[in-house]
Amino acid sequence: MSYYPEKVKTLIEKLGQLPGIGPKSAERIVNYILEEDVSIISELAENIVAVKKDVKLCERCFNLSETPLCSICTDEKRDSILCVVEEVKDLILIEKTGFNGIYHVLGGRIVPLEKTSISHLRIPQLIERLKRERISEVLIATSPTVEGENTAVYISEILKKRGIKHSRLAYGLPVGAEIEYVDTQTLKKSIEGRKFIY
Amino acid sequence: MSYYPEKVKTLIEKLGQLPGIGPKSAERIVNYILEEDVSIISELAENIVAVKKDVKLCERCFNLSETPLCSICTDEKRDSILCVVEEVKDLILIEKTGFNGIYHVLGGRIVPLEKTSISHLRIPQLIERLKRERISEVLIATSPTVEGENTAVYISEILKKRGIKHSRLAYGLPVGAEIEYVDTQTLKKSIEGRKFIY
Repeated sequence: MSYYPEKVKTLIEKLGQLPGIGPKSAERIVNYILEEDVSIISELAENIVAVKKDVKLCERCFNLSETPLCSICTDEKRDSILCVVEEVKDLILIEKTGFNGIYHVLGGRIVPLEKTSISHLRIPQLIERLKRERISEVLIATSPTVEGENTAVYISEILKKRGIKHSRLAYGLPVGAEIEYVDTQTLKKSIEGRKFIY
Repeated sequence: MSYYPEKVKTLIEKLGQLPGIGPKSAERIVNYILEEDVSIISELAENIVAVKKDVKLCERCFNLSETPLCSICTDEKRDSILCVVEEVKDLILIEKTGFNGIYHVLGGRIVPLEKTSISHLRIPQLIERLKRERISEVLIATSPTVEGENTAVYISEILKKRGIKHSRLAYGLPVGAEIEYVDTQTLKKSIEGRKFIY
């Protein structure tokens, strides 16, 4: 590192702090930046600043948005099923399945032994929405991990108290998997959740 | 992708063009950018622009530099061994070994069937330096690949004609490797280059 000019060093350090980028990748990226056209690199830098400046969270569902309400919340053709997810990236994955409901991004999950993890979640905002909006069903789409499951149970309790119909993503075999490689817990869940064909 | 706001989409595409960054990593980096403090992100963008603007190639050895001559070329304590490398990143690796000579960065290697590959190399500049500077030895440190070897042979011919003492990096076992995993060619080279102990 000390072999590089000061500015190169600084940039390698900063890039190395990005997720998934180690010191080696950071060096490669800096080499790319040094070799690429100045116009392309300036555009990249401008894009970074623009995203930071102009992309906010939707006031209603906390999806990413350049406007106060996101493109999903302003889409009048959406169903009244509200899908609760941990993060925006989960919302994106569910959108890709063709799901046509609306969302609520919690902004995390409940981590046991971390009391603050609940207070950081957008659960009050969810409750507020359930009062105001006409929601036919809440689909809890937190991850199938211990923490995601905890979060689902917590939200389920809230919804039960209010008599709101809700569901949870199904557990089962991942599509395309060989049964021999599926873990016992998943297999067990896929038997419990079996669908009768006849 | 179409599920993201326009600016996020653009940035994911641009980041995905950087070396070693796929679409998934690009998404993760954009998420990081969205969550991180605005000051940190602006600094990153400024750094990118600054590197592009202020970091040039050393006029003498073509190392990266913020000044006309790089820190190695202006270091008076360097030996007069000139190490020829393909790229700046090779120079950095050799610096890390504690090598205390000077360098000449070719800017590539000779690729067979690509005639232009020779004309892009900084070989005329190397010849010019050999005329002007007092060089005690040229160490050819191109890669141990077919192309690197070709380049080494080509440069060696030039140096022979001019009666300039020169050497090539040694082939042999990589330090720390188990012999059972070393390929036959390397093992053969390490036998040819064996050092007598007694």
